[in-house]
Amino acid sequence: MDELIIRPIAQIRTDFQEKFGIPRQSGRVGELTGTIVFVPEFRNQDALRGIEEFSHLWLIFDFSASHREKWSPTVRPPRLGGNTRVGVFATRSPFRPNPLGLSCVKFLSLEQTAHEGTVIHVAGVDLLDGTPIIDIKPYIPYADAHPEATGSFADTHKDDRLAVDIPPELLSAIPEAKRNAVIACLSEDPRPSYQDDPERIYSMAFAGLDIHFRVQNGIAAVIRIDKKD
Amino acid sequence: MDELIIRPIAQIRTDFQEKFGIPRQSGRVGELTGTIVFVPEFRNQDALRGIEEFSHLWLIFDFSASHREKWSPTVRPPRLGGNTRVGVFATRSPFRPNPLGLSCVKFLSLEQTAHEGTVIHVAGVDLLDGTPIIDIKPYIPYADAHPEATGSFADTHKDDRLAVDIPPELLSAIPEAKRNAVIACLSEDPRPSYQDDPERIYSMAFAGLDIHFRVQNGIAAVIRIDKKD
Repeated sequence: MDELIIRPIAQIRTDFQEKFGIPRQSGRVGELTGTIVFVPEFRNQDALRGIEEFSHLWLIFDFSASHREKWSPTVRPPRLGGNTRVGVFATRSPFRPNPLGLSCVKFLSLEQTAHEGTVIHVAGVDLLDGTPIIDIKPYIPYADAHPEATGSFADTHKDDRLAVDIPPELLSAIPEAKRNAVIACLSEDPRPSYQDDPERIYSMAFAGLDIHFRVQNGIAAVIRIDKKD
Repeated sequence: MDELIIRPIAQIRTDFQEKFGIPRQSGRVGELTGTIVFVPEFRNQDALRGIEEFSHLWLIFDFSASHREKWSPTVRPPRLGGNTRVGVFATRSPFRPNPLGLSCVKFLSLEQTAHEGTVIHVAGVDLLDGTPIIDIKPYIPYADAHPEATGSFADTHKDDRLAVDIPPELLSAIPEAKRNAVIACLSEDPRPSYQDDPERIYSMAFAGLDIHFRVQNGIAAVIRIDKKD
């Protein structure tokens, strides 16, 4: 079978400059927004005609930060403690033979910009800033929605959430429009699940800030916020 | 942004040697089964470890029968009568800048074969025989199932079905294991929705048979079945 050459059609802008803290699946954190900016070749308003009638979109994207020379048949999902090996096709791991990801996002709006053509604003993103977008498809509930589907480990802990404590003087360092997203991301517990050291300080890069926190007794406590250089 | 070179990991075997009659979305016809056979490089049982715990799988595939030199920003979905132009990113049309398709199928079983390694049997397929498979991912209901999502034209007519009339002497020409699938595919009404000519004879190639039928008053009537050469 022939190889296929894929050209990214767009790039998504998000508040995540680093992988740490990105929710484990799309849709987990509705407060996380992103903007899809098309590359000049695919910057064509006609190609989006009718897209605003759909509430949700699929993004197929390039796991560009996770390319590897060789593929490995098994991966160790963080959700399983990082020691259990599972077949790569039984996971959504970025380390796959073809490094394509699949995310379902909410459509928010189209915007006509002065210099970048029509961009798409979406919510519920789980993507690194600058991720190349390969395809955008409408979500079709009668074909795509299977609430009766059963999973395995991917379902466990899905409702575990941390309480989030941010002292008022630190909260004021976060732009108001980003506060709910920060709280929601921390409540998702970004730590690998095999780590449980109450003294350890984690740092999440978000929206130009470095947000330092500890986790103890089910509470993520923010202890310092720095502006990134 | 860089181009990405994609190597198919597998091929799917289905009963559709031609496009006509393939359901418009995956999952529409649960009776349609397929078998995913890995290419030698990716034939590795470990890569499937744990996959049997998922009820549904995503297939990302190459619309290999729909490659075109140039992309068109708009397409004319058959469901809209074939005359209305819609932006390609507002459709699941195969004619897209990157010709990737997305189907949700039911996992049936793994089978160890003598000459092709471990194969995956799935149901609810909407793929041409021999379609190159690019990636297989588990369906994760909490991230992927959005029954509340709203669509546009993609939702209309989704419950229109034809009655199917196959005279007993013709029915016996269809292998018993394939009969329900034939009936289900015909009831989906494979005609382009802008055609409504009760005299016109259509032919659906399925499982080595050519199934000829007419449609009148909401009934698909099979009038002849030939074995394909």
